[in-house]
This record gives sequence, structure tokens and C-alpha cells, in this order.
Amino acid sequence: MGNFAFDKELAKRLLAEFTGTAIVLTLGCCFAKGGGGYDTRHIQSSLTWGLAYLTAIQIFAMLSGAHLNPAVSGTATIVGIMEWQMMLWYMLAQLLGAMAGIALTFAVLQSSKSLCLSGTDVKLHVMSIELLATFFLLLAYCAAWDTRSEGAYETLSLRIGFIFTGLSFATYPTTGCHLNFFRTFAAAVVNGSWGIIWPYLVAHAAAAAAAGCIWRFLFAEEAPEPMA
Amino acid sequence: MGNFAFDKELAKRLLAEFTGTAIVLTLGCCFAKGGGGYDTRHIQSSLTWGLAYLTAIQIFAMLSGAHLNPAVSGTATIVGIMEWQMMLWYMLAQLLGAMAGIALTFAVLQSSKSLCLSGTDVKLHVMSIELLATFFLLLAYCAAWDTRSEGAYETLSLRIGFIFTGLSFATYPTTGCHLNFFRTFAAAVVNGSWGIIWPYLVAHAAAAAAAGCIWRFLFAEEAPEPMA
Amino acid sequence: MGNFAFDKELAKRLLAEFTGTAIVLTLGCCFAKGGGGYDTRHIQSSLTWGLAYLTAIQIFAMLSGAHLNPAVSGTATIVGIMEWQMMLWYMLAQLLGAMAGIALTFAVLQSSKSLCLSGTDVKLHVMSIELLATFFLLLAYCAAWDTRSEGAYETLSLRIGFIFTGLSFATYPTTGCHLNFFRTFAAAVVNGSWGIIWPYLVAHAAAAAAAGCIWRFLFAEEAPEPMA
Amino acid sequence: MGNFAFDKELAKRLLAEFTGTAIVLTLGCCFAKGGGGYDTRHIQSSLTWGLAYLTAIQIFAMLSGAHLNPAVSGTATIVGIMEWQMMLWYMLAQLLGAMAGIALTFAVLQSSKSLCLSGTDVKLHVMSIELLATFFLLLAYCAAWDTRSEGAYETLSLRIGFIFTGLSFATYPTTGCHLNFFRTFAAAVVNGSWGIIWPYLVAHAAAAAAAGCIWRFLFAEEAPEPMA
Repeated sequence: MGNFAFDKELAKRLLAEFTGTAIVLTLGCCFAKGGGGYDTRHIQSSLTWGLAYLTAIQIFAMLSGAHLNPAVSGTATIVGIMEWQMMLWYMLAQLLGAMAGIALTFAVLQSSKSLCLSGTDVKLHVMSIELLATFFLLLAYCAAWDTRSEGAYETLSLRIGFIFTGLSFATYPTTGCHLNFFRTFAAAVVNGSWGIIWPYLVAHAAAAAAAGCIWRFLFAEEAPEPMA
Repeated sequence: MGNFAFDKELAKRLLAEFTGTAIVLTLGCCFAKGGGGYDTRHIQSSLTWGLAYLTAIQIFAMLSGAHLNPAVSGTATIVGIMEWQMMLWYMLAQLLGAMAGIALTFAVLQSSKSLCLSGTDVKLHVMSIELLATFFLLLAYCAAWDTRSEGAYETLSLRIGFIFTGLSFATYPTTGCHLNFFRTFAAAVVNGSWGIIWPYLVAHAAAAAAAGCIWRFLFAEEAPEPMA
Repeated sequence: MGNFAFDKELAKRLLAEFTGTAIVLTLGCCFAKGGGGYDTRHIQSSLTWGLAYLTAIQIFAMLSGAHLNPAVSGTATIVGIMEWQMMLWYMLAQLLGAMAGIALTFAVLQSSKSLCLSGTDVKLHVMSIELLATFFLLLAYCAAWDTRSEGAYETLSLRIGFIFTGLSFATYPTTGCHLNFFRTFAAAVVNGSWGIIWPYLVAHAAAAAAAGCIWRFLFAEEAPEPMA
Repeated sequence: MGNFAFDKELAKRLLAEFTGTAIVLTLGCCFAKGGGGYDTRHIQSSLTWGLAYLTAIQIFAMLSGAHLNPAVSGTATIVGIMEWQMMLWYMLAQLLGAMAGIALTFAVLQSSKSLCLSGTDVKLHVMSIELLATFFLLLAYCAAWDTRSEGAYETLSLRIGFIFTGLSFATYPTTGCHLNFFRTFAAAVVNGSWGIIWPYLVAHAAAAAAAGCIWRFLFAEEAPEPMA
């Protein structure tokens, strides 16, 4: 694995990714069960998920970069600020964090009824919309990582949180605005709805590839250096 | 064209304007079809459009300044931070981006029913309100560009995004809060409602002229230097 | 008037206060007529007024400090960052701006029906609540002006805008959340409801005196220097 | 008490904690009585409490750090940035501030009907959810205090305010989202509902212990120095 070693610093990063993803899943997917009709649910859910990301990014941005999402780690690897071995470790920590978040909520609420329910039938245009929204989110991460905005991390949590909220306002009625494969996976595990997995996986993978390549080859100023 | 040349840096800027305008149009105009009654639609639409600008400005502010709006580029030219040739290139990129955003959404949703619908009859006071709101938005850009706030770009996306949301809260019931001629043009193309074009065009052009002149001759500290 | 002179710099400041107050009144008081029942009106009105202040502060903070409110200028004079002559000029510009904002809206909407309506009967506890909310708002300005937060002006518009929104969420049902005497005066002029004037005037004056004195004598680090 | 002395600087800090906690309780707990059904109450209450913290943190962050919450002071002591004697003084000031906030509101509104009402029955899973949400909030404070984010205080009020709002969006329907023992105590005093005290006290104390220990022993970069 070359100059890549599992040390205390990496352990801290992975613990941050694990805990951060668990926080997002717990807050967003599992507590967001407020009553009310469709209208306020749309507004409330978009704000809840966006502010859940805001919370986790505020806590963990300085420790691990607060990816909290396999598509974000994938894009970071493509644009060249992350080694592929660390990407795999990050994804593993995120997957375990997502599972821990669900397990915790299940233990606390003692009910899985409509937990993390994915609201819509899956059709081709659902996949397209999820792809576009994830692509826009990943471009926002690319801009934040760019060497030209180096140092501007103080308000990263506010910006990503409200961008997520905005994407959810626009796409929630059609796709539920997942934008994170492990959130989809969590919904599938809890509701046994495995049919929803593939469209989201394809959409998120394609969005990560597209955003990473477009930023690296069209928008980046110079070749960035690996983070490790 | 004097010292103005089409080079790689300009191509990057134009691609940024193109993609950014497409993102705003796709998120704001075309996905914002949430159900519900008039009340929540007003709140939801204002937040969706404002956060769509937030998203695109977060991504592209460092690449092209994220004008995304012909009135913004026009005002920039009047206050003296942009050459007129570049203004024309920016406007062309924005127009193509707006068309691409609609085409993409049309392809994805496979329905143009009430897509980008402009909600109101066009009367004289609609034009006046759109003029005022656009004028206020352009003054906010002028303040952000001013030499006295140089460097304060980290939170530009948050500030412009929430200003757009605020203007939309105030003016959405009357005018739909376009503030961007290519968004009006998009609505006209999709719905064949060409009658709405002229009042918005006049309002936006007048607002750009007024904001640019007022900032340049009344508020600016010193003669700014061209950006190119 | 000692070392105080009416020069070009002061004219620029007064024009900024005039225009800024007009923008706030136009956006907040006069456009905020969205339909819907009481619930959404409460949320929408609080966001509209808060984001109206955000807009005007983003534009004019660098030019005049964006007081836009006689209580803010009064408090600034008490804590010692403003000369009393300039305070009077600022208040005059704000009053004219408020009147211009109403006149403009009246001309545009061609209807004064329920324009700037003050929603409640005036009782003693209404005055108390308005006094408390204005006091909290003015303390936030004092903290922003304090020498210890010097330079932190980039996000001033976001912070004051959302503080105004929060105060309005808490107090709108009781008092309409004016917090600005010229907004009260505007409502009285348009609706002929002069009975509402005095409680608000007393509340705002008392809040300015209390906030200014508490900050200057209890919380300030050292004697600040006049701004002029 | 070693090098710890009650001086003017400490008096200023305690006055700030006292006033700040009173402001939060007055704005959040006691004014938040807007009408309307359950749906908008959920959204409105979450925004009101979050923006109440935003207001108080904007005012007092530079004076006392704006803890405003015994769990925050407890966590600060565990992570090592506060001496335990000062923690006790802070908690006393916060308790008196919370009582003053209620007394003030009671005097102003002249009605304690459903004042600060705690919305739900207390069950084991309510305690668990309150523990988790408080734990997440305290981690956000730990990250803000960390030496690696030193200096990034300008937007602290915005970040904590919106994190509180997000936690409330997620947990309000179940627990009322207290996250602050003196807010619970206030509700108990006003409504005589002493049965709600213990679950919240246990949840907040456990969250403070967990967040403090996890940050200090797992995430902190180096041994921080005491603040005094």
C-alpha cells in the first residue's frame, strides 16, 4: 500500500466518518417523522436533512473533512485529493456508521414503521433526477476543496447544509432526495425494499464519476496534491 | 477587440456561466413542482429558487464570479469591473445554459405541464415591482464587488441566496420573482407565453442601468479596474 | 458643530441610510401581502422582514453601517461610536427613506388596503414585549460594533437578518414585531391609525437607552472612539 | 480556590451568561405561542428556539463564550477549557437567568397558560432521544472550541443556531427538544410538572459526560489549556 499506513490519525478520521454518518442518518432518516400533511412534510424533511448534514459537518469537518457519503469520497479520489485506499476505508466507516445510525434509532423508537421510507416508485426519470441533484451536490464539494478556496472552511457546514436543503426542496417530491447511497441502503434494510437500491446506486456512481472528471479536467486550476 | 482574447481562461469562465445557469434553471424553474396549496407553494418556491442560486454560486463564484443572469453581467459592465465584449460572451453562455437547463428537465420529466409557469397576468405594476426587486438584487451584487469588501467571498453564496429568497417572499405573489431575463425567456419558450417577455425585459434592463449608474457615480469609492 | 461638517462622505452615508430604509420598508411592510391563513402569514412575514434587513445591510453596511432604524442610531450614540449631530442626520435620512418606501409602494400597488397593517390592539404588555425584543436586537448591534469583534462584518447581514427573523417568530402574534419606529410611523400614516404610535415610540426609546447604557457601562471593554 | 478569583472580568462573564440565558428563555420558551395547527407549530417552534440561541450567542459569545446551558459548561470543563469553580458560577448564573426570563415573561404576558409547556409524556425512549440530540449539540460545541478551529467565531451564532433548529426539527414531536436542563426546570416551575425533571436531567448529564470524554480522549489534537 505504498506510503499509506493505518495509524492513529487515520483511526481518528474513520471514527469521525463513522460517527458523522450515524448522526446524519439518525437525525435525518429516522427521527424525521413529524406529523402533518404532505406540504409541511416536504418543507420539514428538506430542512431536517439539510441541517443534519450541517450538524455533522460542523463537528467533523476539521477531523475527516466530513465526507459522510460514498459519492463524496469517490469524487474526492477522482479529483485527486484522496488516495484510493483511504477512499475504501472512508466508505467502510460510512457504511458501518449508517448501519449504526439505523440500529440506534430502531432501538430508541422501537418501531420501524415507515422508518426511512423512500417515498416514490422508481422510474427512469427518478434515476435521472437523483443523478442530476447528486452531481450538483458533488460539484459544490469540488469547489470547496479547490485550492483557490483554501482556508474558507468556517462556513462550509452552513453552505453544504443549505445546498442539501435546496436540492431537497427541488427533488423531494420525485425521489426523496437521497444523494447518499448508504441512506438508500438504510431505507432498503429497514423496509426490505431492495428494489430501490439499483437506480440510486447507478445514479450516485455516475454523478461521482461525472463531477470528479469535469472538475479535474475542466475546472481545476492545477494538479492538486494528495491529502494523505 | 483590443486586449481581449478568447483563451482557455475565458472558456473556463463561459463553461462555468453555462453550467451554473443550467443548474439554477433546472433546480428552480423546473423541479419546483411540489404539491400543496398556494401558501406552502409560496414559501417552498422562494426557498427553492434562493437555494438554487446559493448552490450555483457556491460552485462557480471562484471560476466566473457566478453572474448567471444577464442583468448582473450588464451591471458589472456599467460599474466597470467587466469589459463589454466579455459581457456579451457571458450573456451568450447564460442563454445557452438556460436553454440547456430546460431541455434537460424536459427530457427528464417528460412533461412540460405548468413547467416554469409564470403565475400572473402582466400589468404595469407587475413591471414596476419586478424592476424594484431586480434593482435591489443588483445593488447587493454591486456591494459585494466593491473594492471595500474585497476578499469577503466565502459567504457570498449564502448572502445572495438568502437575498433572492427574501425578494421572492416579498414579490412572488405578484410577479413570480423572476429577476433574471433568461428565466422569463425559458418560461416563454416552454409555455409559448411570449406576451410575458417584454415587461420583464424592460424591468430588468432598467434595473441594471439604474443600479450600475447609482453605484458607479454615487456610492463607489474610486474608479475600479477592469477584471479581464 | 465643532469638527462636524457636511461633506461628500456624509452625503454618501445619508443617501445609503435613505435608500436602505426605503428598501426595507418597500420589501417588508408593503410587498408582504401574500395570501393564506394566519399560520403561514406568521412564518412568511417573519422571514420577509428579516431577509429585507439582510438585503439592505448587505448593500449598505460598508457605506453607512446600515443602521436603517432610529433606535440603532440612538444606541450607537449612547455607546459612543457616533456623534449626536450625525445621529440626527441619520434619523432624518431614515425618516425620509421610510416615507419614500411607502410612497413608492403606494404608487406601484395603487392600493393602500391593509398596507403595513399593524396587527394587534395596543395594550401595556404589547409595549413591554416590543421593548424587550427591541432591546435584544440593539444588544446584538452593540456586540457587532464592539472593538473586540472588529473586522467581523462579512456575515453581519446574515446574523442581523436571522436575529430579526427570530425576534419576529417570537413576537409577531402579539406586536407585529416592528422594532423600528419609522416602520410604525409608516403604518400610522398609511392606515391613519395614530393611536398605535405612542406605545411603540416609548418602547423603542426605552430599549435604545437601556441597551446603550448597559453595553457602555457593563459590557464594553474600553472607551470606544467616535466614528466621525 | 487557587488562582481563581472573583473579579470584574468574571462578573462581566456571569452577567453575560445570566442575561443570555434569560433572553433565550424569554424568546424561545415563553413568547413562542403562535397560533395554528400542529404542523406549523413544529416548524415555527424549531426556528424560534434556534434563532433565540443565535441571538444570544451573537450578543454574548465575545463576553462569556455564550454557554447558556449547564450541559455546555459541564462539557467545557470535561474537555479542559474551563475550571470547575467557574463552571459552578456559570451554572448558577444560567439558573438565575432562566428564572429571570420566566418571571419577566410571566409579568409581561400575565398568563402562564401553557407557558413553556413540555409537549409529551415522558418515556424511556424520550430520554434516549433527548440524550442523543444533546450529545450531538455538545459535540458541535467541542468542535467549535477545538484549537484547530481557533479564531472561527464570526459565524458561531449562525452555526449553533441552525444546528439547534435542525435538532428540533428532528426531535420536537417526541421530546419538545429541550437540550438544556434549565429550560426543562423552567417548564416544571411554571406548570408544576415536576415529573418531567428527572429524565431530562439524566439525559443531559449523560450527554455532557459522553461528549466531553469522547472529544477529549478520542478527537482532541492536544491537551488544551484552561481558559481562566
